[in-house]
Amino acid sequence: MEWLKKRILEEGVVLSEQVLNLDAVLNHQVDPELMMEVGRQFAERFSAEPITKVITIESSGIPPAMATAYALGVPLIFARRKKTLGLEGESWCERVPSFTKGIVTDIVVSRKFLNENDNVLIIDDIIANGDAARGLIRIIEKSGAELAGLGVVVEKTFQAGARTIRELGIRVESLVGIADLSGGTICWSD
Amino acid sequence: MEWLKKRILEEGVVLSEQVLNLDAVLNHQVDPELMMEVGRQFAERFSAEPITKVITIESSGIPPAMATAYALGVPLIFARRKKTLGLEGESWCERVPSFTKGIVTDIVVSRKFLNENDNVLIIDDIIANGDAARGLIRIIEKSGAELAGLGVVVEKTFQAGARTIRELGIRVESLVGIADLSGGTICWSD
Repeated sequence: MEWLKKRILEEGVVLSEQVLNLDAVLNHQVDPELMMEVGRQFAERFSAEPITKVITIESSGIPPAMATAYALGVPLIFARRKKTLGLEGESWCERVPSFTKGIVTDIVVSRKFLNENDNVLIIDDIIANGDAARGLIRIIEKSGAELAGLGVVVEKTFQAGARTIRELGIRVESLVGIADLSGGTICWSD
Repeated sequence: MEWLKKRILEEGVVLSEQVLNLDAVLNHQVDPELMMEVGRQFAERFSAEPITKVITIESSGIPPAMATAYALGVPLIFARRKKTLGLEGESWCERVPSFTKGIVTDIVVSRKFLNENDNVLIIDDIIANGDAARGLIRIIEKSGAELAGLGVVVEKTFQAGARTIRELGIRVESLVGIADLSGGTICWSD
């Protein structure tokens, strides 16, 4: 994934020992061509699984998840972060803290779009503490769907999120891993 | 756009005279292949414009906007709905009411990604009252960028949003128009 590391080095901004700002490539501006390549990578890694849907959480997860769903030829679901008018009725809901927003939010998925006949792949942009991903995993369990795994563009390996999910027996594929941000520079984990 | 009308008729749910739930095709689940076709349509309609960036507002605008940015070969910016850790610093901000959420939110765009050298195309999923779109237009004006126009997947022509924006002299292209939802059925405007 040297092409992805190169873009992150060029455009990422280390804000603290915990926070890497990727607004220029993932969280506020995205290069659609780069996203499509990200999607092809995830589709390849999970090509042996009988995936029926890709799921992510709004908002930054949507570009890589849509690219992956396109590459796999399946629908994309984006979990909403709070109930809106259109989502009243039958939904699964999990309350999760948000690392970057510093607040607690509800993530919501309509029962209409996820059930025991589905085999789902979670895609997210960055995994840090993994609270949102674990919330989504609980929703998938409740729905009775199979979980093929979790694909993340950037894994911060110095935070516990991905490890705690692997410890649940879930396959986690990250395209790049960041081991350390101290000293103001990015130290890759591989 | 008969293919798009067909999908909306099959999967849309009329909730009231004002609200058409498009969770199955636009707001919660999306078909990436359909979105890519939407993107190609917008790219074709605005092909004469020297567009440098596509901009939308999180979250439902992201799939059609990413597809359009991909078709045009330019970056996508998604305005954030509130300040997050990563967006501190220099940003443009506009306060807008949200029709579906029933609340007021701030939409925020970093100055890093939008300036007077840009020619931007706004893409959104649905236009009703147009508050969010007008907020984004004010941000683009402040940035000094040129505005090529606004592309919306679904225009509710019985609400004032698109008309008020056309009255500002801005080109608005909608793929399908809905004239009426009374009686529980969709009445197309063309």
